[in-house]
Amino acid sequence: MGKTKGKDRARTGDRHGSVPADGPGRLGGFREALRVGDGFALDEVDAGATPNYDGGKRDGKQDLARAEEELSELLERLYAESTGGSKRAILLVVQGMDTSGKGGVMRHVVAVNPEGVEATAFKAPTQEERAHDFLWRIRNALPAAGQLGVFDRSHYEDVLIVRVHDLVPEEEWSTRYDTINRFEREVVDAGTTIVKVMLHLSNAEQKARLMERLDRPDKYYKYNPGDVDERKHWDEYMDAYQAALARCSTDTAPWYVVPADHKWYARLAVQQLLLETLREMDPTWPPADFDVAAEKARLAAT
Amino acid sequence: MGKTKGKDRARTGDRHGSVPADGPGRLGGFREALRVGDGFALDEVDAGATPNYDGGKRDGKQDLARAEEELSELLERLYAESTGGSKRAILLVVQGMDTSGKGGVMRHVVAVNPEGVEATAFKAPTQEERAHDFLWRIRNALPAAGQLGVFDRSHYEDVLIVRVHDLVPEEEWSTRYDTINRFEREVVDAGTTIVKVMLHLSNAEQKARLMERLDRPDKYYKYNPGDVDERKHWDEYMDAYQAALARCSTDTAPWYVVPADHKWYARLAVQQLLLETLREMDPTWPPADFDVAAEKARLAAT
Repeated sequence: MGKTKGKDRARTGDRHGSVPADGPGRLGGFREALRVGDGFALDEVDAGATPNYDGGKRDGKQDLARAEEELSELLERLYAESTGGSKRAILLVVQGMDTSGKGGVMRHVVAVNPEGVEATAFKAPTQEERAHDFLWRIRNALPAAGQLGVFDRSHYEDVLIVRVHDLVPEEEWSTRYDTINRFEREVVDAGTTIVKVMLHLSNAEQKARLMERLDRPDKYYKYNPGDVDERKHWDEYMDAYQAALARCSTDTAPWYVVPADHKWYARLAVQQLLLETLREMDPTWPPADFDVAAEKARLAAT
Repeated sequence: MGKTKGKDRARTGDRHGSVPADGPGRLGGFREALRVGDGFALDEVDAGATPNYDGGKRDGKQDLARAEEELSELLERLYAESTGGSKRAILLVVQGMDTSGKGGVMRHVVAVNPEGVEATAFKAPTQEERAHDFLWRIRNALPAAGQLGVFDRSHYEDVLIVRVHDLVPEEEWSTRYDTINRFEREVVDAGTTIVKVMLHLSNAEQKARLMERLDRPDKYYKYNPGDVDERKHWDEYMDAYQAALARCSTDTAPWYVVPADHKWYARLAVQQLLLETLREMDPTWPPADFDVAAEKARLAAT
């Protein structure tokens, strides 16, 4: 994937520059820009930045809308490929603190085709789920061949909230990083490409978003008094995220950290991460498994 | 719901008239126009018509796009309502012959929010499903409170393909109409509003769409030689649809027949049927179940 003008511009810091009148062209380079690599430090990431993108909110919304058709077509090709026997699938894992915009990603990025998308929101485990290994419910929700699976929270909660609140002893959660890496290796080997995204919100922006929920009756339903209690553990959550990101960003299943104080940017970045991954997968239409000429003749006769 | 200008115009037959420059305003009246009532005869329905709509393809696509936000908001309200204890949900049942556009409804109408939409495609029953009553797999796929369930094919296959091909004896399938009506009554009583749509395609248009699949390598994967064999049973399918529509269009769960030779019209009509139903349901944001002022103070202190 070539570097884009947008990427180079972003490096100049001129991130609110306007796009050319003839449109911004195809974007690219979000994976390189957002990937968690060696020496990564979450506390150095500016949640208010818009890396690899030089447009503003209006541009970002336009670019998001413009790319929807390509995303939809790539997912249709992925599905089509599976009807020819391919086992490939794609899994988007979305993590982030409360109000970081996970629901917005669902509504604005992956709302493509309900038959081609298998979304699962992982809440506190049920009694049945608790009776199994922590990966049991995750395995059950993995996408079938040809599908886009989307996890709203995931097995990473088992090294995030579980670690912050000591829901299991340290000697148990501390082994899970390696367990997760082995699990993801297995999933990838079976044909599913994994894209892991952390929506990185600032503490101040979370406060503003929670306050908005308390100001608007149409947002009350999203508010939970427990959210304020959780804010008191902010630093511990950041430490837990740092550990998960650093220990589980592998070549097999890399983590991407998406600054999320600007909702429009976070949605665009997640969409572009998916698009870049799908372009690289390059799913192909399967060949006909029937005699095309003979079928045309049969059909013509009806 | 008031009658719209669009509806009145449609009655003049001027259905390809242009919309005013200031936009068409809110549509309405699709339920009345498309509902299966007393004396209904499927063979009198013109699959190429665009009832209750006087715009053309371009207008239809614009109107579809324009209403997406309202549909999304009504579904969010329905979900929010459920968090306050409401058991209400909505179920869209989509039936139609091969190539009638069921997939297009999935991609272009109900692709709203994968976490709020539970879509199920019913294929030939599996061995496990066959070991149960024909409604077993249907019950398992009913939407949870607050959700939009979408059935791509449904329990009606058990009085359609099953009847056409004598997959069970007549004395068995002939009792299913009443069984289905009782089942749907039960579902509605439990809080789920049912919208049943038949996408009504002409025999000639199906032939053209199948031929297109044979002409385009990116459509091969949708083609199945069995589709041509099924065309030979067209009249029997129409008889089976007539019986299902006439016997199972009840006040509890009415059937709507949507002319589907124009894809853009079928998508718009299904969207409007959903919208009109959701507007009537009028889901409400639940009240706060916490002390708003106290929470504001707690949050401000963080």
